[in-house]
Amino acid sequence: MIDKLKYYLRINTDIDELQLERIGRYFQYRKVKRDTILLFAGEVCKELYVVSIGCVRTYYLTQQGHEKTRHIGFEGSVVTSISSFISQQPSFEFVGTLEDSELYTISHKHFYQLSIEIPEWEKCYTNFLEMVYIHQNRKIEMLVTLSARQRYEKLLNEQPFYIQRLSNKHLASYLDMREETLSRVKSK
Amino acid sequence: MIDKLKYYLRINTDIDELQLERIGRYFQYRKVKRDTILLFAGEVCKELYVVSIGCVRTYYLTQQGHEKTRHIGFEGSVVTSISSFISQQPSFEFVGTLEDSELYTISHKHFYQLSIEIPEWEKCYTNFLEMVYIHQNRKIEMLVTLSARQRYEKLLNEQPFYIQRLSNKHLASYLDMREETLSRVKSK
Repeated sequence: MIDKLKYYLRINTDIDELQLERIGRYFQYRKVKRDTILLFAGEVCKELYVVSIGCVRTYYLTQQGHEKTRHIGFEGSVVTSISSFISQQPSFEFVGTLEDSELYTISHKHFYQLSIEIPEWEKCYTNFLEMVYIHQNRKIEMLVTLSARQRYEKLLNEQPFYIQRLSNKHLASYLDMREETLSRVKSK
Repeated sequence: MIDKLKYYLRINTDIDELQLERIGRYFQYRKVKRDTILLFAGEVCKELYVVSIGCVRTYYLTQQGHEKTRHIGFEGSVVTSISSFISQQPSFEFVGTLEDSELYTISHKHFYQLSIEIPEWEKCYTNFLEMVYIHQNRKIEMLVTLSARQRYEKLLNEQPFYIQRLSNKHLASYLDMREETLSRVKSK
């Protein structure tokens, strides 16, 4: 079951087979039904997920009770409430599945143990942090500089599977627009 | 002139004196007048700054031409257009001084060279990435969950020097509120 995890690590890192074996032992394979909340806001995030099959998202609630989606991870993505996972302080975000999913999970403790044991893992972690920072920044940039219609078109061109796989509700939340706006934009 | 940089690194890291000497050689000392733009949006960010004296901020313009301030760094802070510095793609942000400043600057090339030469530097970099991600996330959380007045009060309690040192214009931009709102909140 861990073979797919090793495959992801093999194509994205320089970790050798012996170390992959060691890493694999720290991960647990887990099947989760759709619409399952893996972490509630206010809890401390103690797990990180690699999506094998399905889709996991992180989101938070505004004061008005609207869901805002920070990140949606499909197959091969790493998902967690990053700030809480790093700081071990209560999470501001929820983490939950949007589809029936199969996940590889690793605990906070084992994750940082690997950073000490395997230097290349530390390097992976740095790359991950760079990537999430850039991703977050690009999202802010997109929200600030593009209209709702332009944001939809950009996603349609660059990552059409988001539009195929997500409900209008979640897609609208991810693109930071109302569902009615999304329907109007889609129909054009 | 590099003594203060070494001091910051000495109190925040485990880097030894020999390595500090090596790191110091890669940094340049630079005096910059207030209101100087160090990086324009659209340029690739090739430098990172450690603030010795003064104040440097990163900000971007909305479609309506409003300035939004992402980060303000006072003495001891690290400031750069992080996404652009990492990806070496054009920056979405401006970087500029708000006060007459003295900076330690390091080039992108030398920064990553240090990561290869000095393992502890790589560790510093990872800690820096963790910190900026958490900082960015807390800022989003604050914007979403607190009213303008609550945001001002939080800053007044936790980091009063922001309020003492920044003009109303920059403070309002940092707290993501109109200047008129800030004046109203301050007067109460």
